[in-house]
Amino acid sequence: MARIVMKFGGTSTADNDCLRICAGHIAREVKAGHQVAVVVSAPAGMTNELGARMAKLDPDHQHKDESDLVLSSGEQINAGLLVMVLRQMGYKARSWTGWQAGLITDDNHGQARLKTAASQQFCDDLDRGNIAVLTGFQGVTIAGKITTLGRGGSDVSAVALAAAIAADRCDIYTDVDGVFTADPSIVPEARLIPRLSASEMLEMASNGAKVLHSRAVELALAENLDLRVTSTFKEGPGTEISEGLEDHLVSGIAYSRDQSRVSLTGLKRGIGAAQKIFAELAVAGINSDLLALGPASDLTMFNLVFATSRQDHGPVVECLRQRQLADLYKTMDAKENMARISVVGLGLRSQYGMADRFFSSLASAGIIIDAVATSELRISALITNEQVENAVRALHFAFALDRNSK
Amino acid sequence: MARIVMKFGGTSTADNDCLRICAGHIAREVKAGHQVAVVVSAPAGMTNELGARMAKLDPDHQHKDESDLVLSSGEQINAGLLVMVLRQMGYKARSWTGWQAGLITDDNHGQARLKTAASQQFCDDLDRGNIAVLTGFQGVTIAGKITTLGRGGSDVSAVALAAAIAADRCDIYTDVDGVFTADPSIVPEARLIPRLSASEMLEMASNGAKVLHSRAVELALAENLDLRVTSTFKEGPGTEISEGLEDHLVSGIAYSRDQSRVSLTGLKRGIGAAQKIFAELAVAGINSDLLALGPASDLTMFNLVFATSRQDHGPVVECLRQRQLADLYKTMDAKENMARISVVGLGLRSQYGMADRFFSSLASAGIIIDAVATSELRISALITNEQVENAVRALHFAFALDRNSK
Repeated sequence: MARIVMKFGGTSTADNDCLRICAGHIAREVKAGHQVAVVVSAPAGMTNELGARMAKLDPDHQHKDESDLVLSSGEQINAGLLVMVLRQMGYKARSWTGWQAGLITDDNHGQARLKTAASQQFCDDLDRGNIAVLTGFQGVTIAGKITTLGRGGSDVSAVALAAAIAADRCDIYTDVDGVFTADPSIVPEARLIPRLSASEMLEMASNGAKVLHSRAVELALAENLDLRVTSTFKEGPGTEISEGLEDHLVSGIAYSRDQSRVSLTGLKRGIGAAQKIFAELAVAGINSDLLALGPASDLTMFNLVFATSRQDHGPVVECLRQRQLADLYKTMDAKENMARISVVGLGLRSQYGMADRFFSSLASAGIIIDAVATSELRISALITNEQVENAVRALHFAFALDRNSK
Repeated sequence: MARIVMKFGGTSTADNDCLRICAGHIAREVKAGHQVAVVVSAPAGMTNELGARMAKLDPDHQHKDESDLVLSSGEQINAGLLVMVLRQMGYKARSWTGWQAGLITDDNHGQARLKTAASQQFCDDLDRGNIAVLTGFQGVTIAGKITTLGRGGSDVSAVALAAAIAADRCDIYTDVDGVFTADPSIVPEARLIPRLSASEMLEMASNGAKVLHSRAVELALAENLDLRVTSTFKEGPGTEISEGLEDHLVSGIAYSRDQSRVSLTGLKRGIGAAQKIFAELAVAGINSDLLALGPASDLTMFNLVFATSRQDHGPVVECLRQRQLADLYKTMDAKENMARISVVGLGLRSQYGMADRFFSSLASAGIIIDAVATSELRISALITNEQVENAVRALHFAFALDRNSK
């Protein structure tokens, strides 16, 4: 007998028929003798609908505490409905909201962090053989206000719950078959990755692979928890994610379109201009990435390029226009509609020639790179949105991801 | 400075525009220097939509605990959204769910009864000058499961809250102008009743006037709390309901269509047949009303007619067909599609000729009465659904309710 957490996303729980399919997966695990805790998302579309209503009432999104109360209703509905389906099939089940299960978070509304996961009462219920259906994406502050965990929050709930109840496995059911070597809608030859190390998955997720949220992978890595990503609607093995598993030379290509590029020219050398700029950006809560710094034609000057997320585009421009920063550079050029493309794999750190293969394949495809960043497991480049498809295909071919070799 | 509870129903909170109108009413009271606690219903339509989905998953409505979790989401959404509107207008406000406010109920899911209303924390928040927006219709059991209060539950929440926080007044905002002498869609001459005693309102509500739920009026009567029913969308005084107010000879006509009639013939005298039948019905949880009992043509026998609610139609027939009851009578005739029509007013108990006026006006209108019931404040008759409009008009005219006299 194992203890399993099964998480179902929004498209997996969109309507009554979907909920019946989820219940079938749950029943299979219960029949196999396992203890099952389930985490559900809000039905697809509901969160966006509520978000659109709130955007009209509170355009600057100032009232995040109330927004959390509103948004938490979707998971609540799905948890109750799924329990009904399970009970109609003859199983013992009950729903748990975040506050009922004792999921205490900090009070950072809209993107709260879990501090504890699952009360003794919740675990006792599992031990009595009941299926526990938990509302994902949400928790409660010590003061008793409902919080939400931000984007991908239900993945985080599932992993945190799995860690807290010492689950043997956490299965993420979703609307795709698993993790692919690249987006199959761009690269028809993209292959399902059957096994992947958690560190690689973290780089994939952090760099735009949408199948799993990076915070959830981070947590799984920290807790040494095995994940499986699999389809709700199709039979298949999915992708196993575990730190113990074999590592790939290059495991896949990820991309993220929501980027913005800022180019500054004519920064003076030797006065700490870049340091001052990034310090101010940090104070304003703006993350930057993909930094490129090079000499200007006048060698007493240098130029700076960096990327931010698209939602920070406005704030970053505003911040750089402040007098004390505006004096540090000559011109600013900010461009939305940029993308970050990444190659991920453990082989990148140990194999020579990987960076060369990355740059030369993009160059042959006629793709211009504005900035670059690398980590132990990843090479990323900033390109325009229009070049994403070309770049993904070029890299997928260059790193031989269409062939079943490692 | 007064302490006021303001309750807004589902049509009053159906969308963003409606919520802004509600906020306007709240702002007016706050500007007048009052402490304001607000109770909101779910947006119109949402409860029915969720009910329809659940009817497919749980057709026998067996899983009322989970249904309560699902249904409580609507008020949650409205509470959060209304607070956003109030804050955007510059007011201090926060939402409270039933469990946050400490509204403990029994565990009779689907129609729970409140045992306590409003924690000290909730009252402290009001004292600090914050507008408290409470989700109506719901509470929480001691064990921490969400409950709902059944039909009209938000009215009950509002009155219970008003009693618990010692409010000076409870205002019920709705989609009609107040309480009328009869349904204005049937009687165009129907007048708005400006002032009404709580006992009369209770009879009106119990006998089908939909504007206020009878449980809420009952509670207001018990707590000696003043109510006001008024329109969210139109300026106007509405109807004041207070036990201290002047009583009307006849205050209005109410009707309820969801009735069923059962006629039994050939019951033997002297063996307690009627008593046995009503005892069995009580065990089955079936309420009966409007009892008529008369001699049969064979004088050793008698006939019995009574009414039940339409939802009890099936169960009552099934119950009467059981062997130990079926032996007690000769024939049973059960008919759905019946209605109960009532004249309500304190004058009924003290004035002669009221019953005569009731029966003769219905007779002149060609309306057949199947059974009758009276209380101190009310005369009711069981008629067919088709005759409701005629009967309401005939009684409204006969009791001179179209004239501004008492």
